[in-house]
Amino acid sequence: MTSDPQPFSPELRARLGAFSAATLHEALGKKGNLPSAIKPLAPGMKLCGPAYTVQTAPRDNKILHRAYALAQPGDVLVAHCSDFYEAGYWGDLMSLGAKTRGLAGLVIDACVRDADDIEAMGFPVFSRGLCIRGTSSFEDGMLNQPVVIGGVVIHPGDVVVGDRDGVVVVPRERIQEVLEKAEAREAREAWVREQLRAGKTSIQIYGWE
Amino acid sequence: MTSDPQPFSPELRARLGAFSAATLHEALGKKGNLPSAIKPLAPGMKLCGPAYTVQTAPRDNKILHRAYALAQPGDVLVAHCSDFYEAGYWGDLMSLGAKTRGLAGLVIDACVRDADDIEAMGFPVFSRGLCIRGTSSFEDGMLNQPVVIGGVVIHPGDVVVGDRDGVVVVPRERIQEVLEKAEAREAREAWVREQLRAGKTSIQIYGWE
Amino acid sequence: MTSDPQPFSPELRARLGAFSAATLHEALGKKGNLPSAIKPLAPGMKLCGPAYTVQTAPRDNKILHRAYALAQPGDVLVAHCSDFYEAGYWGDLMSLGAKTRGLAGLVIDACVRDADDIEAMGFPVFSRGLCIRGTSSFEDGMLNQPVVIGGVVIHPGDVVVGDRDGVVVVPRERIQEVLEKAEAREAREAWVREQLRAGKTSIQIYGWE
Amino acid sequence: MTSDPQPFSPELRARLGAFSAATLHEALGKKGNLPSAIKPLAPGMKLCGPAYTVQTAPRDNKILHRAYALAQPGDVLVAHCSDFYEAGYWGDLMSLGAKTRGLAGLVIDACVRDADDIEAMGFPVFSRGLCIRGTSSFEDGMLNQPVVIGGVVIHPGDVVVGDRDGVVVVPRERIQEVLEKAEAREAREAWVREQLRAGKTSIQIYGWE
Amino acid sequence: MTSDPQPFSPELRARLGAFSAATLHEALGKKGNLPSAIKPLAPGMKLCGPAYTVQTAPRDNKILHRAYALAQPGDVLVAHCSDFYEAGYWGDLMSLGAKTRGLAGLVIDACVRDADDIEAMGFPVFSRGLCIRGTSSFEDGMLNQPVVIGGVVIHPGDVVVGDRDGVVVVPRERIQEVLEKAEAREAREAWVREQLRAGKTSIQIYGWE
Amino acid sequence: MTSDPQPFSPELRARLGAFSAATLHEALGKKGNLPSAIKPLAPGMKLCGPAYTVQTAPRDNKILHRAYALAQPGDVLVAHCSDFYEAGYWGDLMSLGAKTRGLAGLVIDACVRDADDIEAMGFPVFSRGLCIRGTSSFEDGMLNQPVVIGGVVIHPGDVVVGDRDGVVVVPRERIQEVLEKAEAREAREAWVREQLRAGKTSIQIYGWE
Repeated sequence: MTSDPQPFSPELRARLGAFSAATLHEALGKKGNLPSAIKPLAPGMKLCGPAYTVQTAPRDNKILHRAYALAQPGDVLVAHCSDFYEAGYWGDLMSLGAKTRGLAGLVIDACVRDADDIEAMGFPVFSRGLCIRGTSSFEDGMLNQPVVIGGVVIHPGDVVVGDRDGVVVVPRERIQEVLEKAEAREAREAWVREQLRAGKTSIQIYGWE
Repeated sequence: MTSDPQPFSPELRARLGAFSAATLHEALGKKGNLPSAIKPLAPGMKLCGPAYTVQTAPRDNKILHRAYALAQPGDVLVAHCSDFYEAGYWGDLMSLGAKTRGLAGLVIDACVRDADDIEAMGFPVFSRGLCIRGTSSFEDGMLNQPVVIGGVVIHPGDVVVGDRDGVVVVPRERIQEVLEKAEAREAREAWVREQLRAGKTSIQIYGWE
Repeated sequence: MTSDPQPFSPELRARLGAFSAATLHEALGKKGNLPSAIKPLAPGMKLCGPAYTVQTAPRDNKILHRAYALAQPGDVLVAHCSDFYEAGYWGDLMSLGAKTRGLAGLVIDACVRDADDIEAMGFPVFSRGLCIRGTSSFEDGMLNQPVVIGGVVIHPGDVVVGDRDGVVVVPRERIQEVLEKAEAREAREAWVREQLRAGKTSIQIYGWE
Repeated sequence: MTSDPQPFSPELRARLGAFSAATLHEALGKKGNLPSAIKPLAPGMKLCGPAYTVQTAPRDNKILHRAYALAQPGDVLVAHCSDFYEAGYWGDLMSLGAKTRGLAGLVIDACVRDADDIEAMGFPVFSRGLCIRGTSSFEDGMLNQPVVIGGVVIHPGDVVVGDRDGVVVVPRERIQEVLEKAEAREAREAWVREQLRAGKTSIQIYGWE
Repeated sequence: MTSDPQPFSPELRARLGAFSAATLHEALGKKGNLPSAIKPLAPGMKLCGPAYTVQTAPRDNKILHRAYALAQPGDVLVAHCSDFYEAGYWGDLMSLGAKTRGLAGLVIDACVRDADDIEAMGFPVFSRGLCIRGTSSFEDGMLNQPVVIGGVVIHPGDVVVGDRDGVVVVPRERIQEVLEKAEAREAREAWVREQLRAGKTSIQIYGWE
Repeated sequence: MTSDPQPFSPELRARLGAFSAATLHEALGKKGNLPSAIKPLAPGMKLCGPAYTVQTAPRDNKILHRAYALAQPGDVLVAHCSDFYEAGYWGDLMSLGAKTRGLAGLVIDACVRDADDIEAMGFPVFSRGLCIRGTSSFEDGMLNQPVVIGGVVIHPGDVVVGDRDGVVVVPRERIQEVLEKAEAREAREAWVREQLRAGKTSIQIYGWE
């Protein structure tokens, strides 16, 4: 039921990014959801792109500088910070650098800072919140290796989609399948929506009465 | 000092809903406050209405479909999800169904999803946050039985009032008493406000110097 | 490298308040950061001023009434509530009283209530969130003694600066030093920003390649 | 299916106390379980008796002194401490006083101290752990009123049974029913045990293959 | 540096089980550690064996009955319970069934019950603690598929070693490598131990002065 | 009411160590209590001695090696690990080194490992628990500077006393005062104990009826 990987074309980005994170999660068979504590830094921020994965040491952000320099334009940095949340691993300068290089955004299982500036430049950042605490520069960690966030294994190249509701990770090899299922789900939901507007309840529509 | 229950008339809804949740909590003798983690999904959302209570199994939402179909127009669904927060038990389709049936809102001790759509349709939802994670459909649980959320016992028909500050539950048989105490409190606060504007401090006003 | 304390002049307030909390934290040598859970009650709220410290008993707020009456105009109340967060220790009346007396704001390691009214009057409040739960009036606690919040010791007169990213505490005797370092940091960052805009990455700029 | 309340005779105590807390919880229809964080202070401690309920203010233990003086011999004190765990609300002197008065033990949703002495005198204490932090003596709270611990409503006179696995609360009016169901469950489990020893697995025994 | 998988012989079990979980974790390059909250139910309990993995729905244990019936003698059940800890997913009857079938133990990311009986029969159980709360029997979940516990991906057949300090998971294909490194580490530590007994400190021994 | 510092003689160690941590905490005016999560690694472990303070980077333990080499015989290492608990910062080799040098024990606001060996050699360790996860060796941190653990500021030379109930820190300059108050408290408690044994309750003894 899965399809072969394929290059992440602008068209693919547009098609996947048109679905909500929740819809893609359902299309995956209720998989790929990152912890709900990871949310967009500002209202309306969305992202969609292939993951460039990062593992940092706790409270150390040096490898994140290297990450955005090595990632490809269009990539989304996905960072796990060894379960240490209370630091600002990312800020306005790094956002500027990453945006200048054409990156599509950041998903980080920890905090960031400089929210006003990041919001102003429109670089999509999804994090556990804002924290001013500075970081060290030992540079322990890994680049472009699988990372685990909240029970989800993320491989480099998996596609990350984030919106107000949360973040989902779509394995690269399941993109085609997920697109089809998401489209089918949306069609079905459009029909349910009509039924609901006509006054039926979901237990009637689904035959659960 | 308490009065007999009475039907929940539009006039009663308007009178109770005119008070803040904090004021009603004080009028109850500092009781009835739900956990502060339960907050409106969007700025400005408020709700007021009698509770239709729901108990779900962890990560299972089927009974919520039945709940909104069985509740009366004007009711507020109040759901406890067995202390499992990390799932989106409610979304845009259920909001549409519940709104179409005339329900007054949802208070849920867990997460929901499809925030943009729910906000757009103006259906008041108070939750612990947003989570894309899907649910199962085993339908364990209870309808219209007392539930306990954060140490507060909520009986069907108790009145739920929510605003930006939080959610309070007013036992049905104490509504009249609470209305009177809340009005007295507001009158007293209006007088204190004048004193404060005139430059007195509260320790002077309350005789605590 | 430190300087003597000095009166907290309007000019000093303006100079310190012009820096972000994150910049001052860095200028302090990555110190003085309060827990990231303490955030402004409404977007855009900022504060800067010398601390008038308060220690309350858990769920008891009487001493906060005394605090704002005894603090000086321009002071920021900094309250530790004995690690009991789930109560609304502060509300609209106290905000009105404190604002009338000319206080510069409140930082509290717990919750507050009456957010709409406080936001409307423009009194800066930084808290762990909103909670309607009322408090007792035993008045246990301390005024104007050192308090500890999240591992940071705050002495009366230390300067507190808060913005969207968080709150930092600058020890009184380090103000001059911190101003200089913050200015140097901003100058350096302006230069880095130019390099980034010119297409360099931070690992190139910092020589980490 | 329920029976009338009855005096809590030594025979009843012996019959109920012979069952494990888990068995009684199952006999109740999977109800009455207190939070698993509440555990016996020392290995082998068990308790069984009618609840004398206490509600304390956070970090205040004065009402607990009154509680053990007013409770009846054979009673188990059941204390909720307003969700403030980090204090030693109970110690060796109170244990001595309560034991001298013939009380059957303490279940507290918070911490205690003087564990060595309490263990030595053999007074059963079930708590969230040990904490040396002292308490205040304002005496806010309630005696012999319903309290809620972890979603379980405990009425005065309900029977509390605790062992290594945890604590269960049996509503007074369901004792007879629960005894019968617990006995039936044990008989059934004895039979299952034989089948298991004979090499069958539970999916075979329960017909789940 | 890795070797081919190999059958898990008694000799291999003895060799691996002779190392502490901490030593094997170090030999893996500081990997494979399960959350420290997962601990043996009773002092002295240890386990070593290939994983038979289980994923349960929250608060549902039916699939665990199937798991111990399908696992091979010598296997260790490794169960993830969808992040819902507060239930007793496993008890004395299941322990009896699993022990009778020759299983080597259970590692579960949640709670169990019937601790006295399980300890008495000597079946090694590692859990987050004890909880009397009963479970449902819907049987959602998965058997013998990779599960993720605390950021560690566990594949069926990976070897699980647990002792008082905690639990480590050794990927099947790295066993030979890990054995060699663990032996080397122990030899090195024996030498360090001698140096320490002779009065040297570790900064002298490691040349860190 | 305070006295001058004094050398920490064996007699002083014996006198202070004879009191429970809870008694000393009360004698300090209910101050100095470390978080209750910090507990002895094994039953019966106690410690008493002047603090040699350590601050580590998160998950980095190199500075602890230096600490025990530089501390004086009789000192207690007191380590704060930057709020990162989930690692084994200390083990059997370090315990052997520290014990050989005559140190009196370790109090650490994080986890340790090698519990069996440490218990066997009788080196008192108080920690948040056991964790096998290894550490890095960057050696960030501080030695012999004030550290803050759970809101308590600990200066080098303050005296640390730990037992089963928990850990208290007595400021060096208050030792004499605390000794006197602790002795007075114990005398008073001995008298209360007699009254309790004679059948009086504490509300009678304290005149609270």
